[in-house]
Amino acid sequence: MKDFISVKDLNLKIFSEIYDIFKKYKESYSNGITKFTDLRGVSILLPFFENSTRTRTSFELAGKILGADTINISGSSSSVKKGETLFDTIKTLEAMQADFIVIRHYMSGAAKIVAKHVKSRVINAGDGTHEHPSQAVLDAITLLEHKKSIEGLRISIIGDILHSRVARSNIHLLKMLGAEITICGPQTMLPRHLEVFEVDHVTTDVDEALKDRDVAIFLRIQLERQKKVFFSTLNEYSIKYGLNQKRVELLKEDAVILHPGPVNRGIEIQSELVYGDRSLILDQVENGLFTRMAIYNYLINN
Amino acid sequence: MKDFISVKDLNLKIFSEIYDIFKKYKESYSNGITKFTDLRGVSILLPFFENSTRTRTSFELAGKILGADTINISGSSSSVKKGETLFDTIKTLEAMQADFIVIRHYMSGAAKIVAKHVKSRVINAGDGTHEHPSQAVLDAITLLEHKKSIEGLRISIIGDILHSRVARSNIHLLKMLGAEITICGPQTMLPRHLEVFEVDHVTTDVDEALKDRDVAIFLRIQLERQKKVFFSTLNEYSIKYGLNQKRVELLKEDAVILHPGPVNRGIEIQSELVYGDRSLILDQVENGLFTRMAIYNYLINN
Amino acid sequence: MKDFISVKDLNLKIFSEIYDIFKKYKESYSNGITKFTDLRGVSILLPFFENSTRTRTSFELAGKILGADTINISGSSSSVKKGETLFDTIKTLEAMQADFIVIRHYMSGAAKIVAKHVKSRVINAGDGTHEHPSQAVLDAITLLEHKKSIEGLRISIIGDILHSRVARSNIHLLKMLGAEITICGPQTMLPRHLEVFEVDHVTTDVDEALKDRDVAIFLRIQLERQKKVFFSTLNEYSIKYGLNQKRVELLKEDAVILHPGPVNRGIEIQSELVYGDRSLILDQVENGLFTRMAIYNYLINN
Repeated sequence: MKDFISVKDLNLKIFSEIYDIFKKYKESYSNGITKFTDLRGVSILLPFFENSTRTRTSFELAGKILGADTINISGSSSSVKKGETLFDTIKTLEAMQADFIVIRHYMSGAAKIVAKHVKSRVINAGDGTHEHPSQAVLDAITLLEHKKSIEGLRISIIGDILHSRVARSNIHLLKMLGAEITICGPQTMLPRHLEVFEVDHVTTDVDEALKDRDVAIFLRIQLERQKKVFFSTLNEYSIKYGLNQKRVELLKEDAVILHPGPVNRGIEIQSELVYGDRSLILDQVENGLFTRMAIYNYLINN
Repeated sequence: MKDFISVKDLNLKIFSEIYDIFKKYKESYSNGITKFTDLRGVSILLPFFENSTRTRTSFELAGKILGADTINISGSSSSVKKGETLFDTIKTLEAMQADFIVIRHYMSGAAKIVAKHVKSRVINAGDGTHEHPSQAVLDAITLLEHKKSIEGLRISIIGDILHSRVARSNIHLLKMLGAEITICGPQTMLPRHLEVFEVDHVTTDVDEALKDRDVAIFLRIQLERQKKVFFSTLNEYSIKYGLNQKRVELLKEDAVILHPGPVNRGIEIQSELVYGDRSLILDQVENGLFTRMAIYNYLINN
Repeated sequence: MKDFISVKDLNLKIFSEIYDIFKKYKESYSNGITKFTDLRGVSILLPFFENSTRTRTSFELAGKILGADTINISGSSSSVKKGETLFDTIKTLEAMQADFIVIRHYMSGAAKIVAKHVKSRVINAGDGTHEHPSQAVLDAITLLEHKKSIEGLRISIIGDILHSRVARSNIHLLKMLGAEITICGPQTMLPRHLEVFEVDHVTTDVDEALKDRDVAIFLRIQLERQKKVFFSTLNEYSIKYGLNQKRVELLKEDAVILHPGPVNRGIEIQSELVYGDRSLILDQVENGLFTRMAIYNYLINN
C-alpha cells in the first residue's frame, strides 16, 4: 500500500491494523510519552490548495511528533501563483525527495492523479467533492471507542450529501464495517444515482432520519462555497434539518453525534448542543491526531 | 500558574524566577550552547490573528530551540476563513493535545476567555488594546541589564497610551518593580480614567516628559490601523512628540530609549537615533527570544 | 566566506568543495541516510518577499534535514505589512540570533546590503533581476553529473536575458568553469551593454543558438510580472523562441536541456518535451536540495 487516496484502499484487515497503531499511540500519550522517532529522516510535504485548520494542523503535528521533517506549501504563497500546473508542482515535490505528499485540492480526483505519477507516498487530505479518507477513519475509530462494534449500528448522515467528500468516504467505510446507513437532506443535496452510494435509506425528513438511530453525523454546510445559492434559505435549512433538543430525543438513548467541523453554530447543530453530552466532536479532533500518526506509521511500514 | 495572560499574573518572586531562567539561557548561548531539550515532546500551537514578525518569530523560534514541536496557524489560511468562532478554533487546538496555545488576537480579553476554557497553557501574545505581557517582561529585563534595579527609576512612556497594549502591560509591571511612571501623548491618546493606569504623572508636553528621566519608552503609532484618523497630523505628531537629538539631551546622561518595534522611522524616533547610543531597541529583540524561552520553561515547571 | 550573495563569491576551489559536500550528501541519501546533525543548534530564518515553491521549500527542507531550526517569514504576514523597512526587519532577525538569513527580495542588491549590516550569514535566494547564485551552482552541478566537465561545453541561454537573475548568475559561473556561452532572445530582452555579460555569442535567432550546442538553458517568461507587455505576443514568442521537436534536433545528439522552473508549458518548452529524454529539469530540483545542504555546510565550516 503506497498511497492512501480513498477508503476503497482499505479492507477490514488494514483498518484494524491502523486502529491498533492508533491505540498504541493514544495509550503512549496517556502515559506521558509524547515524542517518537518512528518517522525520523522522513520528509512530509503538505501542499494545501484549500484553507484548513484541523486537517492540515493534525497532519503536520502528527508528522512532527513522529520525528519527521514537515513543510507546508499553501496555494497562496507558492509557484501555483505563477501558473504552475498541479502536475509540475507535484513532480517538483517528488524530486525534493518527499517521502509523503499530503495533498488537499479543490479538484475531485486530484490526489489519485498525483499518486499515479510520483514515487512519494500520497495521502489524500480532501479532494473536491470526492473523498476525505482520513476523516472517515477517524470517525469510525471514534465510534468504536464508544460503541464496541460498528456492525449493525444504525447511522444517519444529514446535510449536503451530494457535494460532501466526508459523506462519500464515511458511507463506504461504515458500510464495510457493517453499519446500516441512512442519508438525509434537501432534495437538491441528495445524489440522483443512488446505487453509487450503497446506502440503505434515503429521506428528506430529518425526523425520520434521526428516529431510533445510534449515530447521527451532521455535515458542514459549505457557506464559503455556496453562500449565493444558500443564503436565502439558511434559516429554513436550520429549521428543517438542524439538530435541536427535540430532535436529539428521537435518537436512541445512548446515541452519539458527529460533525467533521467547523460547525456552523445554529445551522447544522443548535449552539448549546455542539459540545453537549452526546457530541463526540472534540473526540473526533483528538482522535484525528492519533489517526494521522497511525496512517503515517502504517504506510511507512507497508 | 497555568497561563500567562496579564502582567497581573506575575509577582516579584515569579518575575525574578523568570529572569533567572532568562540569564541561564542567555549565558548558555554566549557559551555556544544553542539547543536544548527542555521542551522535548511539548506541542506549541500559535494562532495569530494579526500580522507579526518579532513576536510570532521569537515565540516560534524559542519553542524550537527548546526542542518543542511548533505549528503556526494564521487567521488568513485557517478555518477562521470558514467562519469558525474563536471558541471552536481553540477547543480544536486543545483537542489536538496542545501543551501551549500562544495567541495573538485583535479582541481585548481574547486570551483570558480562551484560557478559561482549555486545559492547554495559554500565553497572551497581544490581545487588542489590552495587554502584551511578554513584551513587558522583556522590556523590564532589558532595563535590568543596564540599570541594576528598576526601583526609583524615572520612566516616561510616550505615544498612544490609550490604545496601547504595550503601555498597559509595561505600566503595571514597572510600577510593581518600583518605577516612577510618566505617560505622555496628545490629549486624544491619553486615558480618561487615569486611576486605572496607576501612573505618577500625565502630560501632553513631551519635553516635560523627557526632562531628567532615566528611561523613555516610545510607542508605535499604529499607522496600519489609524491611517484615516492620523494621516493629516502625522507630521505634526512627529514634530510635537517625536524623539530628536535636542530632546535626547533633556534625558539624564545615562538614560536609555526603548521601542517595541517596528519603529516608524521619522515619526516616533528620528531615523538616525533608532539604533543610536542610547537605544536598546535591538537588545529588546534579542532579549525577547530568551524571555520567551524563559516563560515557556517557567510555565512548564510550575 | 561569511555570505553567499553572488556567484562572484565563488572561485574554482570553493565551487569544487561545495560539489564534494553535495556528492557526500547525495550518496548518503542513496544509502538511506536522510537525517543529519551538521546544523544542530543552528537557526535559519527565511524572509521571502516574493512567492516561491522550489527555492523556499528546498532551502527550508535542506536546513531541517541537517538538524537546524527554520522559520519562514513571508512578506504578506509579517511586519513588512506594518511598513517596516527591510533594514529594520533584517536587524530584527539578526538580533534573534539568526545564524543564517536566507532572503528573497524583489529589489536587486537587497541581499548584499543586508549582508553588510548583519553578523548573520546571508544567502541570496534571488534579488530582483540581479542574481540567484544557488540556482547557478545547482545548474552547474547538474551539468557536471552528465557531462564530466564544463570546460569547452557550448551552452546557450534562451529567453529574457535582460531581466533574468538566473541568466546573470549562470553566465558568470559557467564562464568561470570554461563554457562557451551564447545568449538568445528577442532584441527587447537582450542586454544593451554586452561587455557586462561576458558572453561569446549573441543572437536573436533561436535556431542559430541551438545549432550544435551541448546545453540549452531556457528561462522562464515571468508572466506574472509582464503579462501586460507580453500577452499580445505570447504566441509569437512561443513560435519564435519556444523549444519544439524540430529544434531539439538542432542540438548535439547528447545535448541536455535545463529550465529553472516553473515552466510555462507550451511557451518556453513544448509540453511533451518538458520531462523528455534530454530534459534535466527534475534533476535540477533534486540537486537543488542537496546543493542547498552543501551550501549551508560549506558556509558554517568556513
